[in-house]
Amino acid sequence: MRTIIKNIAELVNVEHRPKPRAMGKEMASLETVKDAYLLVEDGKIAAFGPMGGLDEEDGRCDLEVDARGGMVLPSFCDSHTHLVYAGSREIEYCDKIRGLSYEEIARRGGGILNSAKRVQEASEDDLYRDAMRRLGQMIGFGSGAVEIKSGYGMTVEAEMKMLRVIRRLKESSPLTIKATLLGAHGVPMEYRGRQGEYVDMVVRDMIPRAAQEGLADFVDVFCDEGFFTVEETDRMLDAAAKYGLRAKIHANELACSGGIQCAVRHNALSCDHLEFTGDAEIEALLGSETMPTVLPGAAFFLNMRHAPVRKMIDAGLGVAMASDCNPGSSPSPNMQLILSMACINYRMLPEEAINAVTLNSAYAMGVSNTLGTIAVGKTANFYITKPIPSYEYLPYAYGENKVSRVFLNGRETTWQ
Amino acid sequence: MRTIIKNIAELVNVEHRPKPRAMGKEMASLETVKDAYLLVEDGKIAAFGPMGGLDEEDGRCDLEVDARGGMVLPSFCDSHTHLVYAGSREIEYCDKIRGLSYEEIARRGGGILNSAKRVQEASEDDLYRDAMRRLGQMIGFGSGAVEIKSGYGMTVEAEMKMLRVIRRLKESSPLTIKATLLGAHGVPMEYRGRQGEYVDMVVRDMIPRAAQEGLADFVDVFCDEGFFTVEETDRMLDAAAKYGLRAKIHANELACSGGIQCAVRHNALSCDHLEFTGDAEIEALLGSETMPTVLPGAAFFLNMRHAPVRKMIDAGLGVAMASDCNPGSSPSPNMQLILSMACINYRMLPEEAINAVTLNSAYAMGVSNTLGTIAVGKTANFYITKPIPSYEYLPYAYGENKVSRVFLNGRETTWQ
Repeated sequence: MRTIIKNIAELVNVEHRPKPRAMGKEMASLETVKDAYLLVEDGKIAAFGPMGGLDEEDGRCDLEVDARGGMVLPSFCDSHTHLVYAGSREIEYCDKIRGLSYEEIARRGGGILNSAKRVQEASEDDLYRDAMRRLGQMIGFGSGAVEIKSGYGMTVEAEMKMLRVIRRLKESSPLTIKATLLGAHGVPMEYRGRQGEYVDMVVRDMIPRAAQEGLADFVDVFCDEGFFTVEETDRMLDAAAKYGLRAKIHANELACSGGIQCAVRHNALSCDHLEFTGDAEIEALLGSETMPTVLPGAAFFLNMRHAPVRKMIDAGLGVAMASDCNPGSSPSPNMQLILSMACINYRMLPEEAINAVTLNSAYAMGVSNTLGTIAVGKTANFYITKPIPSYEYLPYAYGENKVSRVFLNGRETTWQ
Repeated sequence: MRTIIKNIAELVNVEHRPKPRAMGKEMASLETVKDAYLLVEDGKIAAFGPMGGLDEEDGRCDLEVDARGGMVLPSFCDSHTHLVYAGSREIEYCDKIRGLSYEEIARRGGGILNSAKRVQEASEDDLYRDAMRRLGQMIGFGSGAVEIKSGYGMTVEAEMKMLRVIRRLKESSPLTIKATLLGAHGVPMEYRGRQGEYVDMVVRDMIPRAAQEGLADFVDVFCDEGFFTVEETDRMLDAAAKYGLRAKIHANELACSGGIQCAVRHNALSCDHLEFTGDAEIEALLGSETMPTVLPGAAFFLNMRHAPVRKMIDAGLGVAMASDCNPGSSPSPNMQLILSMACINYRMLPEEAINAVTLNSAYAMGVSNTLGTIAVGKTANFYITKPIPSYEYLPYAYGENKVSRVFLNGRETTWQ
């Protein structure tokens, strides 16, 4: 099956020599081809270049698509989501606006522990159906790869149920999906005051079970003030390493609590949030293989401080961005809005922002060898935009869906 | 022509005794009918109520629409936009991120004076076509009424051209549109150092011409530090009053510069922006007929301080919200995102936010007797949502279009 996309106003984020990630100054460069074609063969990118350089042979295809002056970009890789959950949490959100305390909110059914209760009670089918609907929205906004975490289960059975739902999503969705066991998302009520015993359970039961059943690609821990300590995180990530499961960490959202250094020590694929990042944390990340990942949607929705991204990039770090889509702190699957927030709240250039949600976020979910840029041999996940005057228009025109047509694995994909 | 909408999960913002605006505590109340019907006759709302109360007679209609469990809300009234312009300004936006000075940006073609140059050069047809496209987007996000300002003309001819474009939009679009002459949006280059002479020209030529040709419903002035003084604003609004043109004012975006008090003194319909609003300004607004209008999209996009809306409502004021859609400081037509920002950045309750973008913004554009709520006799401008669990979900699920079908003047309206 050969498909050609013709008359692309600008083919954005092409690579002739693919690299695993973009670091520091590299983030501000974005190679493009104007008035371009893109050739897809058997679900992979086979060739691209200026329309003028297209020879007759290459032009002969099973399917010809006219981009009609739209641009083509590689699909977003959304490397941090909590997409499997039961029930939205808007009432809790209003309770927060009203100034209710954490305890009152929990009593009225809000908070992460209530999300856990609902997931424990929900059927696998219902969780799957709701998550598939959200994946459909993500496709419509231009995402082509999504990492999904468990973490609203908080018992072995409920966590495995969430991971099985993610496996079904992997099997049935055209998106590239990675599954992360986030057993240590919080401490369930019945373990209050016995947090160490919960960690024991994660180490002894949850991680081995997820590994043996082949349900998880990564293991994540919420390592921060008020959540899990560095020592507890060490224990859980050591256990994960024994099963070949690479780490991703929720770190430094609430304080400079050592999570970033812990991530680097464990060679985590990414450490995420990073609102509290100082010189020592940047120093620890430099030269490491850990991708700092920031989540501007959560800071926007919670009206909190933003991570010092400008400083991080200027120091030479690569940075990735993801939606953090979840019912409590960022109920949005829209990666285009994340691009806008990057420019507005972090003062990132559009080029840096685009690299952060494509190549670097692909790296942060372990797929940058096959996704994240337009490069020969990579999986053909991309979208055609509506006619837009420049790629800078993508973050600029915030709150408007600029995606017109989506191709995943080389096939046009519709969505609801 | 009789149309009935059946099976509405919740009909939101109904009024049995219509009031012109919602003040202070009233803003937090939002009357709804669950499992409702809505009857439309000749473009107006004829009746509504619970499905159980629908008698056979009422049920007989030319057209029957099943809301399929979606909610129905009155269309947004977007009472402050600069929708007629030539060319987006994303390159200038990137220059700002790069830290270029105001002068460098102007030299590279950015800023309001360059928008003016482009509008002066653009044909009426091109301006019309671009604005119609943007109105289409607005309809798709749920707006049913839009105020549009001139202000990128800055010569009598170019301002009249913009107003003629708005007249064509009024004639051809199903939206309710109000036109505002904003001749005093800035001081054109050729009047630098002679600002008083520009004001003379607005008073002597621009306002009379717009009035005589019947092109303007309102007159607006950018009354703020670095723009027009209170005395200059007085002169222009006095001239407008002589032609029966009611005032709207850009005020207190940059400083406590007396714009709010000036608006109240002239009995302006609204004063807009209000980032710098203190006790004296709130005191001036209390008991007045002027609607304070806030524009969270501009504060978001420019990463600036937000107006003290919580304090204003708690003091007893009504507040309206609008998109400020314009190419320089808020390039988005999405009023649903404005709802989200209201809850996030102003700590408004969803009920307050919904009143601010419907009834109160209708008041701020002089149409709350016919639009802004679901009330018998009002114009049938409303939308049906996708299935959502509650009206609180509208601001909560930010960045996602919750609108499914749109009705304007009682007719279903499609958009691109």
